[in-house]
Amino acid sequence: MGFFKNIFSKSRHTPQEGGIFFTEMQNILGFAPLDINHYIKAFTHRSSNKLDDKGFPINYERLEFLGDAMLGSVIAAHLFNEVPTGDEGYLTKMRSKIVSREHLNELGRDLNLIKWVESKVSTQHFGENIHGNLFEALIGAIYLDRGFEGCEQFIKKKVIVPYVDIPKLEGKVISYKSLVIEWCQKEKKTFHFEVYEDNGIEGQKHFGVKLKIDGEIIARARATSKKKAEEKAAQRAFFAFQEKINKK
Amino acid sequence: MGFFKNIFSKSRHTPQEGGIFFTEMQNILGFAPLDINHYIKAFTHRSSNKLDDKGFPINYERLEFLGDAMLGSVIAAHLFNEVPTGDEGYLTKMRSKIVSREHLNELGRDLNLIKWVESKVSTQHFGENIHGNLFEALIGAIYLDRGFEGCEQFIKKKVIVPYVDIPKLEGKVISYKSLVIEWCQKEKKTFHFEVYEDNGIEGQKHFGVKLKIDGEIIARARATSKKKAEEKAAQRAFFAFQEKINKK
Repeated sequence: MGFFKNIFSKSRHTPQEGGIFFTEMQNILGFAPLDINHYIKAFTHRSSNKLDDKGFPINYERLEFLGDAMLGSVIAAHLFNEVPTGDEGYLTKMRSKIVSREHLNELGRDLNLIKWVESKVSTQHFGENIHGNLFEALIGAIYLDRGFEGCEQFIKKKVIVPYVDIPKLEGKVISYKSLVIEWCQKEKKTFHFEVYEDNGIEGQKHFGVKLKIDGEIIARARATSKKKAEEKAAQRAFFAFQEKINKK
Repeated sequence: MGFFKNIFSKSRHTPQEGGIFFTEMQNILGFAPLDINHYIKAFTHRSSNKLDDKGFPINYERLEFLGDAMLGSVIAAHLFNEVPTGDEGYLTKMRSKIVSREHLNELGRDLNLIKWVESKVSTQHFGENIHGNLFEALIGAIYLDRGFEGCEQFIKKKVIVPYVDIPKLEGKVISYKSLVIEWCQKEKKTFHFEVYEDNGIEGQKHFGVKLKIDGEIIARARATSKKKAEEKAAQRAFFAFQEKINKK
């Protein structure tokens, strides 16, 4: 058994060396990497003890610093343009909410970045922050590969469009679920949140929820808890309704 | 007297409306503004109570937020590239030193940005931080006018080249003045720091210093205190020596 295990681990590719790493990165990024080495670095944990040809360590920790800075300024520019009435204090507060540790962890987890980590430590021993750290490192790699505009494109697609919901961040909307329930009660409609998926694999638990109104599926969403998935589905239903109202 | 004063203040241009504002901005920026309105905003204090055509206030406060973010990420990228051995903690600490409030005030003061402020409050009533705030707002305006690359170009020219001295920031060099003195004593050379200028105008005090070694002028520098000007001159002398040594 020891023999086979040994053979296996010697011939085994690191997660990034498999041919699908490039393709998968392309899927996540929305563009083809120009220099895949930046992305390999973004997924290399310090425990691998790798060194480059100049003897400098290869791991993602420095890229986190770079990615954090780029994320901060892309979000700053977005808020500056989107909320012309917001003063400096407002903009600072909104940005902190968007780039909070908790939110970054959620972003990294949703992209399942941990799957690509090369490490000598089992990923089960990483804390919760690994998800956000990898997300920041990925943005750092994008900056090196594609410049500030590459970061803007990625952050817009993966952070701003799906997550940056200004009324909710402002606390004007506490919960889309309660808005939807309120509306259904007022309109005398039935509603039902149905859990349709729950894979219990540790470290990547996901719940899927369907929101039905009067028996019709209005929205679906997946998230790391039932509560979050319900809220996301309610939010999607809310924005779909709003779009309908706007088109009238 | 009241009559003349009134006439005068009515016909008087705001600092930015004078024809030289564009030219002067071009000198400061190193490129021609594409949309001068961004720069006018960057120098408009909230006390002017100006509104744009949508009724939003025109002043530089929101631009400070934007400029602060862009400055942070340009410096982050510079340090990332320049110090390949520096870990995340090192990079974070170095950046904090470069973008410290004190340093930003020095940068704004050196460019004499306060000269262009439109305000209903006398500039004498502004605190010390006005200099740094204007500097940040100017970077915000550059971002709107010329994008991230415009910021990079400006910050490189006005912050990185003249001020970002990594050994000094690291604390490896406490004072270039003491290095120069030490060297002169060892080499049995005479040295003399000579103050050659001291305009005492409040708010824009400047001292000029010449550093002479064995009677020969080796370096000159200007700064807001005698001590700072001496240090700057010593630093210039040090780097000039170093260049000579490297060329040998």
